[in-house]
Amino acid sequence: MEDLIKLSVKTKPSEAGEYPVVIGSGILSNQLLARFAAGRRNFIVTDENVHSAGLDSAFQQEAGFFVISPAGEKSKNITTVIEIVEAMEASGMGRDSVITGLGGGTVGDMAGFAAAIFKRGVPVLHIPTTTVAQADSSIGGKTGVDSSISKNAFGAFHHPAAVIIDTHTLKTLPEREYFSGLAESVKHAMIMDSDYFGFLEASISELREREDDVLSQLAEKNCKIKAKIVEEDPCEKNQRRILNYGHTIGHAVETLSGYKLLHGECVSIGIIAAGLIEIELGSGSKKRVEKTENLLKELSLPVRIPEYISTEQILSLIKHDKKAVDGWPRFALIEDIGKALTKGGQWAHPVDAEIVESAVNKLKQKP
Amino acid sequence: MEDLIKLSVKTKPSEAGEYPVVIGSGILSNQLLARFAAGRRNFIVTDENVHSAGLDSAFQQEAGFFVISPAGEKSKNITTVIEIVEAMEASGMGRDSVITGLGGGTVGDMAGFAAAIFKRGVPVLHIPTTTVAQADSSIGGKTGVDSSISKNAFGAFHHPAAVIIDTHTLKTLPEREYFSGLAESVKHAMIMDSDYFGFLEASISELREREDDVLSQLAEKNCKIKAKIVEEDPCEKNQRRILNYGHTIGHAVETLSGYKLLHGECVSIGIIAAGLIEIELGSGSKKRVEKTENLLKELSLPVRIPEYISTEQILSLIKHDKKAVDGWPRFALIEDIGKALTKGGQWAHPVDAEIVESAVNKLKQKP
Repeated sequence: MEDLIKLSVKTKPSEAGEYPVVIGSGILSNQLLARFAAGRRNFIVTDENVHSAGLDSAFQQEAGFFVISPAGEKSKNITTVIEIVEAMEASGMGRDSVITGLGGGTVGDMAGFAAAIFKRGVPVLHIPTTTVAQADSSIGGKTGVDSSISKNAFGAFHHPAAVIIDTHTLKTLPEREYFSGLAESVKHAMIMDSDYFGFLEASISELREREDDVLSQLAEKNCKIKAKIVEEDPCEKNQRRILNYGHTIGHAVETLSGYKLLHGECVSIGIIAAGLIEIELGSGSKKRVEKTENLLKELSLPVRIPEYISTEQILSLIKHDKKAVDGWPRFALIEDIGKALTKGGQWAHPVDAEIVESAVNKLKQKP
Repeated sequence: MEDLIKLSVKTKPSEAGEYPVVIGSGILSNQLLARFAAGRRNFIVTDENVHSAGLDSAFQQEAGFFVISPAGEKSKNITTVIEIVEAMEASGMGRDSVITGLGGGTVGDMAGFAAAIFKRGVPVLHIPTTTVAQADSSIGGKTGVDSSISKNAFGAFHHPAAVIIDTHTLKTLPEREYFSGLAESVKHAMIMDSDYFGFLEASISELREREDDVLSQLAEKNCKIKAKIVEEDPCEKNQRRILNYGHTIGHAVETLSGYKLLHGECVSIGIIAAGLIEIELGSGSKKRVEKTENLLKELSLPVRIPEYISTEQILSLIKHDKKAVDGWPRFALIEDIGKALTKGGQWAHPVDAEIVESAVNKLKQKP
C-alpha cells in the first residue's frame, strides 16, 4: 500500500488572527461600518423586524440590501441563503464585497453562512440587535442553516471581521424577546463569573428599564466570557460544551413547545433542571437553585416546564440530542456559581437517566 | 473610536497538514477506501457516466450513494448540492461521515463543496476518473458550484483527506474527453518542466493506447507540479495564476462555442494563443509554437479558433474574465518551455489589446 502513495500535498496553516468587538450606544453609522468594511463594498442582510423597527435606516443609502422575510427560524434555511447570494450577484457584488448581518441570531447565521460560501468566502460583519445575539451568537464563528430535513444541516465555521454592538438596538425589542436573551447572560455568569451573577442580581431595575450603561456592561461581560471559551476550543471539541449549560433539557422543551416558548425561556428552565441534577450529584444545593430561580423570575423568565409537555417526551427527545454519545446526552454542569464542573478534563458529563427523570418531574408545572 | 473597541477575540491558526496522493492501476476497492475513510461512514457521490461505466461497482455494497444526473456542468449547481446533503441525511449520515467524490471535475466540485458545508464540514476523498481531474482539479482544495446567475457563485476552499488515482478509470473515457484532459498535462509541462514536455512528445503512441504505466507517470508528474504551485499559493493570490496558462483565451472560446468544444480543447487553442502573444512580447518563438502545435495535434487536440467565433466576440468576453483588472485580463505566459514568465514577482501580466487581437486573428480557422 505505502508504495502506492506517490506524493503528499502540504497544506499551509491559516494565520492566527483576531477581531474587534465594538460596544456603544447610538453608534451605528455608515462611517463606523465603512471603517470595518476596509474598502470592500458592503451588502447588508437584515430581516423585516429590524427593518420595521428602522434599525437599518443608518445604512440605507450606501449599501446593497436584503431583507429576510419572514423574520426568524422559518427563514433560516438554505433557500434563503441562495436568495441572498443571488441578490448579491444581481447587485454586482463580487469577491471584493463584505456582508453585514444586522439582526438577531438567525440573521447572523444566514449572513455568516452566505459570507462563508459566496465566491469561496468573503468577510462578514455582525451587528447583533437582540439580547441573545449580543450575548452569544455573534461571537464564535459558527454559522448554519436548515435543510428541509434537519436543523443546521448546512454550515461552516467563519469568524467575523468585527462585531458591532449598539445597545440602542435593544430598545425596540419586544418584551418577551428582550428578557429571553438575558437567560444567556445568566448562563454565562453561572458557568464562569460569580461577580457577574452578583452584578445581574444588583441591576434588575436597570435591566428592566434597558439602561444603556448597564446593557453595555452586560455586552462586554458576555463577549469576554464567550470569547475566552471559544478561543480555547474553536471547534467545540471540549470546553466549548460548557456553553451548552441549561441547553440539553432546554432544547427539548423548546422543540416540544412547538417553538411557542422562546429559546432563552427554555434555557431558563434548563438552567433550573441542571441545578436539580447538580443537587442529586452532590455539586448543587437547594439554596443555589432558589437563588438562581429568583434571578430568572426577576428577569420575567419561566422556571417550570409547561404542563402540556410530558417527562416521557423530554426523555425520548434528549436521546436524539445532537451531542448525544451512545444515545444519551452529556450534561454541562457547574460546581458552584461561576465555576464549571470539570472531571478528568471533560466539560460535559454522563448523568443517569433516573436522575434526569427525577429533575424533570420536579420541574413539571402543576396544572 | 478606539475606546469603543472593548475587546478582541483571538482566532487560532489552523494546523499545517498534508494529504496523500495514491496512484495505481486497478487499485479501487472497498478496502483501499476504508483505509482513507479512517473509520468514518462513507457516502459516495458519483454521476451517471461513471455509474454506466461500472466504475462504482467496487464500492456499491458498503456505502451510501448519490448518482448525479445528468452528468456534467448542467448539474454543477447549488440545487444538486442540496440534493446530496439531503440524501446524506436521509441515509442517516452525520458529522462522523466522509464524502467520496468518484468522477470528473464536476463531481469533485460538488462532492468537495457538499463536504465543506455538511454539518459545518466533513472530510472528502477524491477519486478522479478523467484525464482533466487526475491532472488538475482533484488537487488544490478549490470547490465551487453555480447559482442560476453565474458560475462558482458558491464555493469554499476544502482540502481533500486523500486523492486516489486509478488509471483504469480512464479506459472507458470517450475519446474526445480523454484527449481533452491531456491539454492540462501539456500546460503543466510548459509552465514548469521541460523534461516532462519531452516525455509527452516521446510517449504519443502509449498515450493514444492509454497504457497504464505511462498514465501513472503522467498522473504523478501532474500532481507534483500542481501540488508545488498550490502549496506555495493556496488561495490564488499570485503564483497559482500560472495555472491559468492558456485559459484566458481558452475560457472565452469555450463559452463562445456554447460548450460544444470541451474545456481541454479550448485550453489547447489558448496555449497556442499564449505562444503567439509571447512572440509579440519577445519571449516566444515561431519554432516553439510549432513544436507545441505538433504535440497538441498528435494528442488529437484543436489548435485553431472555430470560424463561427469572431475576434470581436473574444475580445469583448475576456474583458469580463473573472481575473480581469480594470476591465482587462492579465495573461499567464512563459519564457521558455518549462519556465513561467515572472516580472517583478508577478505571475500574470498585462498585454496590450492590439497584441491579443493580432494573436486571435492569426488563430482564426480559415473557412
